[in-house]
Amino acid sequence: MKRMLLTISYDGTAYHGWQVQPNGITVQQTLQDSLERLLGERIDVTGCSRTDAGVHARRFMCHINCADNFPETAFLKGLNSLLPNDISVIDCKQVAPDFHARYDAKGKKYIYSMYVGELNPFYSRYMLHLEKMPDIDLMNKFCQGILGTHDFAPFSCSKRTVEDTVRTITECIVKIKDNILTFEITGNGFLYNMVRILAGTALAVGQQRLNPKCYEEIFESRDRSKAGDTLPAFALILDEVYY
Amino acid sequence: MKRMLLTISYDGTAYHGWQVQPNGITVQQTLQDSLERLLGERIDVTGCSRTDAGVHARRFMCHINCADNFPETAFLKGLNSLLPNDISVIDCKQVAPDFHARYDAKGKKYIYSMYVGELNPFYSRYMLHLEKMPDIDLMNKFCQGILGTHDFAPFSCSKRTVEDTVRTITECIVKIKDNILTFEITGNGFLYNMVRILAGTALAVGQQRLNPKCYEEIFESRDRSKAGDTLPAFALILDEVYY
Repeated sequence: MKRMLLTISYDGTAYHGWQVQPNGITVQQTLQDSLERLLGERIDVTGCSRTDAGVHARRFMCHINCADNFPETAFLKGLNSLLPNDISVIDCKQVAPDFHARYDAKGKKYIYSMYVGELNPFYSRYMLHLEKMPDIDLMNKFCQGILGTHDFAPFSCSKRTVEDTVRTITECIVKIKDNILTFEITGNGFLYNMVRILAGTALAVGQQRLNPKCYEEIFESRDRSKAGDTLPAFALILDEVYY
Repeated sequence: MKRMLLTISYDGTAYHGWQVQPNGITVQQTLQDSLERLLGERIDVTGCSRTDAGVHARRFMCHINCADNFPETAFLKGLNSLLPNDISVIDCKQVAPDFHARYDAKGKKYIYSMYVGELNPFYSRYMLHLEKMPDIDLMNKFCQGILGTHDFAPFSCSKRTVEDTVRTITECIVKIKDNILTFEITGNGFLYNMVRILAGTALAVGQQRLNPKCYEEIFESRDRSKAGDTLPAFALILDEVYY
């Protein structure tokens, strides 16, 4: 037995998120089905996180246990030939037998993308459309304010299942290139819907519907209703996982 | 009555091409359905060309006849709010009553896109994946050779319905940017599958499976089987229509 770490990339549009669930096809299930066809046995795949329905991933990490004679190079080609075009395996390497894709993750980076101006059906699959350019400086003031360690409960969905809602954000910045705006955030972990609510709050700040210092009152009051909207999932991508 | 020229943009993945047909949803039908919901009456939409199933368009042109009091600005917003996200109306302007989106088109530009190297599910919806970079110089020698006026019958599908198979190509070039390669072609008209077969022949040249001067023998013999493969539709985009 050896443990392998897979790097996969997927367009999440067609999937009900990562994790296997009764209603709807998920990325995990699709990957396990293809692995079963390739290897002739059912293998459990353990992912680095549960991404929501419709969320994409540029570099999603997951681990599997497999036989020692597992043919690594043939494996990549074979698995990609069985997977649908919206899921690709990018890399596969052996890790320590006790390595865990989820528990050993030290941090993750997410990117929320928006585009401004003329409608573009090639963008609208992956980015939120905005009529007007928001104020980027105001957005970045908000982003600076949420850096560090805070209780992010008011920036998460009440349906969350975890007890400890304290997280540390090490990077949060809004970048602009041509008419594309990206909200980029790195932290040691994220609560349910946390990135989408933070991006929604940053957008509300950029559109001058909220004050750039609104985070002070939100952190203090722990009141979800004072933060911005939960932006839609389709414009969110898990960019990278750090170990 | 006035005639309006619409510029639309669409991701063709989900559609059986432009033209209304009995088996499968088309872009024309989807547009006519949304127009009917908006205007309360069935309006015929005349397109600039029939794009194949799965082909995309950055700037597709079509005309409609509508009432003189037709509200142009409200129309764009209203129509886009009714259309699915993979079709957008970009522009709408009045043209002469005898203007025809198809017959008045003087030329069209198509782009066939490919990417090289690591699989990328965000590219694979719109670009053909290549393992290795082909020889761009060889490809451009082939592209130079097909410029001008020729009988393109051997570069078209035998299911074509037109009699006159002579077309004029004014621009044909392969460009490369990072790991993305585009085959860009402009001409006064294109036969059924012509762009996909020319791109397939250019690719075969770049992979040294065909000689850069193969067009000489293909034009002379009029033998479709001497040209390259018909590349898949999903990586083809109608870029622009010229009037």
